[in-house]
Amino acid sequence: MEKQNFSFPLSLRDVQVTDTFWKKEMELVRTEVIPYQWSALNDQVEGAAPSYCMHNFRAAGKLNQEKREQGSNFVEPVYTFRGFETLPDDPQHPEENRFYGFVFQDSDFYKWIEAVGYSLTQHPDPQLEAIADGAIDLVCAAQQEDGYLDTYYILNGKDRIFTNLRDNHELYCLGHLLEGAVAYYQATGKDKLLNAARRYADYVADYFGPEEGKCKGYPGHEIAEMALVRLYETTGDSKYLNLAKYFVDERGSRPYYFDKEHPEEVKKHPNGPRYAYNQAHVPVREQDEAVGHAVRAVYLYSGMADIARLTEDETLFAACQTLWDNMTRKKLYITGGIGGTHEGEAFSFNYDLPNDTAYAETCASIGLVFFARRMLEICPDSRYADVMEQALYNTVLSGMALDGKSFFYVNPLEVLPEACHKDSRKFHVKPVRQKWFGCACCPPNLARTISSVSSYAFTEKEDTLFVHLYVGSDLKKTVNGKEAAVHITSGFPWDGTVQVRAESADEPLTIAFRVPGWAEGCTAELTSGHGTTGYSAETTSEQSGKGYRVELTSKPVASSDPHCDICPDATSSRLSILGLAPGEFELRDGYLYITRIWKSGETLTLHFPMEVQIWQADPRVREDIGKVAVTRGPITYCLEEADNGANLHLLTLSPEAAATVEEAVVAGEPVRTILLPGFREVLPDADAEEAGSRLGLYRPASRPEKTPVTLRFIPYYTWANRGENEMAVWVRV
Amino acid sequence: MEKQNFSFPLSLRDVQVTDTFWKKEMELVRTEVIPYQWSALNDQVEGAAPSYCMHNFRAAGKLNQEKREQGSNFVEPVYTFRGFETLPDDPQHPEENRFYGFVFQDSDFYKWIEAVGYSLTQHPDPQLEAIADGAIDLVCAAQQEDGYLDTYYILNGKDRIFTNLRDNHELYCLGHLLEGAVAYYQATGKDKLLNAARRYADYVADYFGPEEGKCKGYPGHEIAEMALVRLYETTGDSKYLNLAKYFVDERGSRPYYFDKEHPEEVKKHPNGPRYAYNQAHVPVREQDEAVGHAVRAVYLYSGMADIARLTEDETLFAACQTLWDNMTRKKLYITGGIGGTHEGEAFSFNYDLPNDTAYAETCASIGLVFFARRMLEICPDSRYADVMEQALYNTVLSGMALDGKSFFYVNPLEVLPEACHKDSRKFHVKPVRQKWFGCACCPPNLARTISSVSSYAFTEKEDTLFVHLYVGSDLKKTVNGKEAAVHITSGFPWDGTVQVRAESADEPLTIAFRVPGWAEGCTAELTSGHGTTGYSAETTSEQSGKGYRVELTSKPVASSDPHCDICPDATSSRLSILGLAPGEFELRDGYLYITRIWKSGETLTLHFPMEVQIWQADPRVREDIGKVAVTRGPITYCLEEADNGANLHLLTLSPEAAATVEEAVVAGEPVRTILLPGFREVLPDADAEEAGSRLGLYRPASRPEKTPVTLRFIPYYTWANRGENEMAVWVRV
Repeated sequence: MEKQNFSFPLSLRDVQVTDTFWKKEMELVRTEVIPYQWSALNDQVEGAAPSYCMHNFRAAGKLNQEKREQGSNFVEPVYTFRGFETLPDDPQHPEENRFYGFVFQDSDFYKWIEAVGYSLTQHPDPQLEAIADGAIDLVCAAQQEDGYLDTYYILNGKDRIFTNLRDNHELYCLGHLLEGAVAYYQATGKDKLLNAARRYADYVADYFGPEEGKCKGYPGHEIAEMALVRLYETTGDSKYLNLAKYFVDERGSRPYYFDKEHPEEVKKHPNGPRYAYNQAHVPVREQDEAVGHAVRAVYLYSGMADIARLTEDETLFAACQTLWDNMTRKKLYITGGIGGTHEGEAFSFNYDLPNDTAYAETCASIGLVFFARRMLEICPDSRYADVMEQALYNTVLSGMALDGKSFFYVNPLEVLPEACHKDSRKFHVKPVRQKWFGCACCPPNLARTISSVSSYAFTEKEDTLFVHLYVGSDLKKTVNGKEAAVHITSGFPWDGTVQVRAESADEPLTIAFRVPGWAEGCTAELTSGHGTTGYSAETTSEQSGKGYRVELTSKPVASSDPHCDICPDATSSRLSILGLAPGEFELRDGYLYITRIWKSGETLTLHFPMEVQIWQADPRVREDIGKVAVTRGPITYCLEEADNGANLHLLTLSPEAAATVEEAVVAGEPVRTILLPGFREVLPDADAEEAGSRLGLYRPASRPEKTPVTLRFIPYYTWANRGENEMAVWVRV
Repeated sequence: MEKQNFSFPLSLRDVQVTDTFWKKEMELVRTEVIPYQWSALNDQVEGAAPSYCMHNFRAAGKLNQEKREQGSNFVEPVYTFRGFETLPDDPQHPEENRFYGFVFQDSDFYKWIEAVGYSLTQHPDPQLEAIADGAIDLVCAAQQEDGYLDTYYILNGKDRIFTNLRDNHELYCLGHLLEGAVAYYQATGKDKLLNAARRYADYVADYFGPEEGKCKGYPGHEIAEMALVRLYETTGDSKYLNLAKYFVDERGSRPYYFDKEHPEEVKKHPNGPRYAYNQAHVPVREQDEAVGHAVRAVYLYSGMADIARLTEDETLFAACQTLWDNMTRKKLYITGGIGGTHEGEAFSFNYDLPNDTAYAETCASIGLVFFARRMLEICPDSRYADVMEQALYNTVLSGMALDGKSFFYVNPLEVLPEACHKDSRKFHVKPVRQKWFGCACCPPNLARTISSVSSYAFTEKEDTLFVHLYVGSDLKKTVNGKEAAVHITSGFPWDGTVQVRAESADEPLTIAFRVPGWAEGCTAELTSGHGTTGYSAETTSEQSGKGYRVELTSKPVASSDPHCDICPDATSSRLSILGLAPGEFELRDGYLYITRIWKSGETLTLHFPMEVQIWQADPRVREDIGKVAVTRGPITYCLEEADNGANLHLLTLSPEAAATVEEAVVAGEPVRTILLPGFREVLPDADAEEAGSRLGLYRPASRPEKTPVTLRFIPYYTWANRGENEMAVWVRV
């Protein structure tokens, strides 16, 4: 961990996304998801279970008002809640003063306001902003005089606040409040919600902490850690950082805080480590395996990385690295999904990555993106960005239908609809996306992530702009007090060509371009107004004992030219890019750093060839043995019944055969599909079987009869947009 | 269904099992299981949860005595039970008057007494018989004046009897009582328990039935149907047959009887067919798919077959055939296991036969044996016996450790111990057998089945003895009032040679020998005292569109002889067996019928070659695609880590390669193991991985590096006797 490497996300107000691919997703969020969610928060969606989210804020505001009016005559409600979720006896007529929904229902608004904030930076919308301001008034009216703000306890009895941190999501709601408030403030400059959030954070900081007499608890569902860091970075008040650090440091220490709340747990696992589900089984610095609820895990790890960076805590960073390595080397689906089991929505054991019962929650991949970005902030190494890209373009996007109107929580890698309907072990796997759920974590989480995609694409430090993801954008960056402008256009994810035009106002600016791990034979060339040079530098990836080594070497292309400049000694000095002086660039940790005074009229063209790639899993992954998966650039592909017929398990692929990439449209989405030759095993004659064969289910082994077929692969994120059907990412060889 | 084909099990008193293989199993049951279970029933097993079974009978007997003593002053208990299972607050000091254990706890004794009965026929044991007689006294003392006999309701309040037929196993306990009482009566001639059982059956027959005013319910857990038939066949009282028929006919009719008991179920599934779990979703004659709890299903089908035979009910028999076909062609594991899912311990959908999450309960395969024997009683077709054999030698035997001291409920086809410990989806799969369970269905069920194995091996009708399984035995059979003796010795399951010596006292006796479906090139020859003939008949199995056609043709063996007698026209007349006249034998439905006056000094030698066979599943079985399984004779084989190292999924088999059969000993059991050449995929270097490779979990597909290995297969029933380790039945090709 070297402080001079640290970088930070750009303010979204300094980035305008122009990218064809992502702009479409962001527009879906703006035009479909945000309005739909506002209706949902207000229980106005036909046919959907009411959320009661705004109802609760209204009820708490009313209670507040009564309290003010009645003064000392006011009687506080006494805790009477009936469970983790409660619904009115008559859904049409909820009682005005009662809390309904899940214990964490408040967070739905906070996620929404966060998405609204991001969206406003990219697309000003006074009408939406007015709705948001009105909603913020409602929320602030619910806040208690003392700063406390959680409608679940306000309405059900404040006598029980912070008594069930493990289960009741109180500090989780705080975290989302902070995230939403900061985002809205950064987008609009309006600080009403931010001030309310600070007051609640102050209340919490007075309540929890290492000091004597303070509560020694910590969140059951993490997020407050990273959110408090964000509040600290926005306000500069170190109290919030200290609280976040306290939560992280205290977590998992013995005796377990959660044991005090849940003595029954001690009986169940007397010798145990307990609370692995909450990543509270051992102190975080001793954790070396990603375990428990996957969303909670990556939210915690994100907070750990933040605190490691801000406190320059090497042991904490080492824990982050260990957890990252464990997760990405032993527990990561090739779709960027994490969480192998629906039991506890959790990580399974090392190398246990079932395809058909996967959980791979959309929110978990979102959290993985958070964690990856934070690791990149500390250490710009392309392996973090590679995973971030893999999660974003695949499992995160798969979470939302192409029309933005339905959502997946679970993102399996293999689906047989009959099994989803008939096999209760797979009831969590849905063969079609669902409308807004009662437990609405994924849709609003998607909205806030997609709306802020540029904060994952780019980070900056004093003199350097990092391009982690190739999201076409117009950016502003201040270098030595002067504003530089960078314009990026990108063909991602279908075409690997990226063009960069920049002006850095006579100041040297470094732009660090990620060389994706999947790209072999990348080229870079700088051209000025008077045409291309005809030469380019090329990277080749070589597999070595240590993994991939990326080398840039110059090599003639198209028209041949004698000025080929290769230095054979050191890796970085072997590079040359025509148009750039030797000292202007270097390749380090998977990033191509180009430092120069950028001038108008020049174009840097990067090309990352997107070849069809066939992958196998580590053979320790039992579920993928004898199978391969197909990717191209950042996109993971899958087979769908709509293109390949039923019984996808009968298909085999010939991995050495040449692939064809085809422009195509899947459910209205222009994509590249991949055609690969393969075979389909012929099913035995059903008639013979019905006619009373004695063969039964088993017959002497013989070489299966197969017919040659062409397998058509579609991008994973586009599956399940053409009705209910089979899908498979892994196909037999 | 033709009445002249009907056959019946022989009285166990007329069969003495001499078989090396089965005698050992029976001795295990006699010397280990029966004494252990008696201790368990009396709560005397160190370290095991008490059963409370005999405690309950004692308590009910005491209550009965009080009732007699107090007369009209006696106050009946009022129903106060606390759930499906109840245990004393202090396990060391159960209250004398209370019921403990599961609602079906009585049945544990009934299964035990049934096993004791069978065992006494094979091994007289006055001491055991005295214990059994004493226990029967206790049980009979618990019976109420009116005949009612279920300690659960006697102790908890008779006001609720027969009010929860679906869940509370009252008629299930009746069924086991009848089975146990008949078995003990047939073994010992003692009728005390039989009379008690009849009185309870009379009570039930008065309570239930089609007549007006009687209860229209039927059992939630089937077994009473076949048990009542057995009582009818023992006593000749058609009342019991009528009640069994009523239970079968009424089942699944609308409105559902269970809806009356469980109106909440109607709300949950307002439109749907309900009670598929209990096979009560539609009337039995309309059932065409084996569904629901697998044990219940095959117990029902067994009763249906019994009633179809006794009432010559073609529609009922047709339903049995349909269900048999569905089950054996779409839902049967190659181990003879049924029940693909632990959710409801149930059948999954067609062709859904997961190996690692299989339920395949021992009791379900026992029930499958019951069903198969009953189908054979109606229709002697070897396909029923083939499945019966498959279940008995594999999943049934797998249910018990080789030392008779621990038991499997669940019989998976693939086990990774780490998954059983860490993956809650597989918690039902145990990597090692367990001691006696609180819910003790499988161990006593195994005891009664193994003790009575000869009743599955042989059935008889007037002039014919059917040999379904080659269990070495000395049998008596009455033909035309005269006693014939048949002595069978068998090398099964390791050697396919069977020798038969018989004397039929000048009366023609037909012995029908099953030609196993797995046997190709069987030979038969009759030799007299003065040496073998040098000729034999040989069966060959040919696969046709309709399945296997078995042909017996004579063919010279060993020393060559000119008298080869082949009739080329009709199938049966093409046979010849040296030493037999042409009219003395025929081949029909997989049985070789030999009719003659059997004489002392002659030996019929049958030989069923046991070749190593490699099988593939119907490709509709997704979990077995690309894999094969190995059998030899009746035995299904598996790979175990103890012989083949960890990570069995890395192994592949070369199915065309020659197998070696080796005599070996597995955990003390002399068996044949099978060696087959194959390969083991080499795992990537763990060091390189730890050293910070960028490769992560996925790498470009390449032909996997493999080393040649010899795969050692052991009989499936012997697995998990050498400590916890991996196991797999199906192996990749």
